[in-house]
Amino acid sequence: MRVMVDFQLVPLGVGVSVSKYVAECEKIIQEAGLERKLHAFGTNISGEWDEVMACVKKCHEHIHQMGAPRITSALKIGTRTDRSQSIKDKLNSVTSKLEEA
Amino acid sequence: MRVMVDFQLVPLGVGVSVSKYVAECEKIIQEAGLERKLHAFGTNISGEWDEVMACVKKCHEHIHQMGAPRITSALKIGTRTDRSQSIKDKLNSVTSKLEEA
Amino acid sequence: MRVMVDFQLVPLGVGVSVSKYVAECEKIIQEAGLERKLHAFGTNISGEWDEVMACVKKCHEHIHQMGAPRITSALKIGTRTDRSQSIKDKLNSVTSKLEEA
Amino acid sequence: MRVMVDFQLVPLGVGVSVSKYVAECEKIIQEAGLERKLHAFGTNISGEWDEVMACVKKCHEHIHQMGAPRITSALKIGTRTDRSQSIKDKLNSVTSKLEEA
Repeated sequence: MRVMVDFQLVPLGVGVSVSKYVAECEKIIQEAGLERKLHAFGTNISGEWDEVMACVKKCHEHIHQMGAPRITSALKIGTRTDRSQSIKDKLNSVTSKLEEA
Repeated sequence: MRVMVDFQLVPLGVGVSVSKYVAECEKIIQEAGLERKLHAFGTNISGEWDEVMACVKKCHEHIHQMGAPRITSALKIGTRTDRSQSIKDKLNSVTSKLEEA
Repeated sequence: MRVMVDFQLVPLGVGVSVSKYVAECEKIIQEAGLERKLHAFGTNISGEWDEVMACVKKCHEHIHQMGAPRITSALKIGTRTDRSQSIKDKLNSVTSKLEEA
Repeated sequence: MRVMVDFQLVPLGVGVSVSKYVAECEKIIQEAGLERKLHAFGTNISGEWDEVMACVKKCHEHIHQMGAPRITSALKIGTRTDRSQSIKDKLNSVTSKLEEA
């Protein structure tokens, strides 16, 4: 099963600046070789369900190892059986309608 | 690694009423034997990371099998290394402060 | 326009325990007189759009005044024109299907 | 109070393809003149609290007028008193750390 997710990790108990931790997650996602796109509230990731979810778990484990005692993260999960769709495809389906207008 | 999540599944392409699908997910979560609490926007679930995530995957697979061509779901994920906490504990930490006031 | 939301506020830069801040939000929601239901990952709130959103804004303002320099919150927003529905109604539409089974 | 949000609107009861509705929301956000960045699971928007929230409300109203009987949307809300930050700033704070590595 293919999946497209939007993943945002927020470490708690490490002060107000969290970009160091977000950058570490981004490296883990890059190393996993998955299609991805960073934005200001998370990262769009696309791939096989088990690979994507293993990546999310690895992020939680790694951020705890870096010293964050608590993590709250948000994951939006999209699956569909009617057709396959990449992150670019999904974005294009909206932007093409904007250009038509 | 223990995890507490809040899981909300929304099937698309099956009309405006989705409670039939949400009830099926609730059964899958019940059968998994995990600590849980249903609310109006999802279900709090607590357990081992792999068990909880297997349950989420099973829900996506089952709802597609029921005929929903597309699913968008939202998962809030909480992990902590400082102490263990059940769904009831987490709720009590707030309600006890309300009673004190 | 009526709205039902699920609101979760997370203060950053105030350490690992956030229940003190969540309890303060709960008081603000109570004082607003809105239908509500607390769970382990937020609070279901129902009411008129402007009243509910004013309540969310007040929570952000108050938590900053309590000393939290940064807040990240999550709001799920449900509106419908086909029928009116309370928090209890929404929950019952699922639980009644579980009892039938 | 400045706010940065991530807004994702999902219309229910209109079939499996929702990009037409998402494009309409994007137009409303553009017309509001707010700093924004579309991604595959929503749109980052930055501005004054009341302007941003008025925009979110307008999207719900407009999508209902287009015929969607039910909408579920997700809004992540970020506020901070320690410093001002644009969408680009927030993104750069992560990407600069990736380049250093």
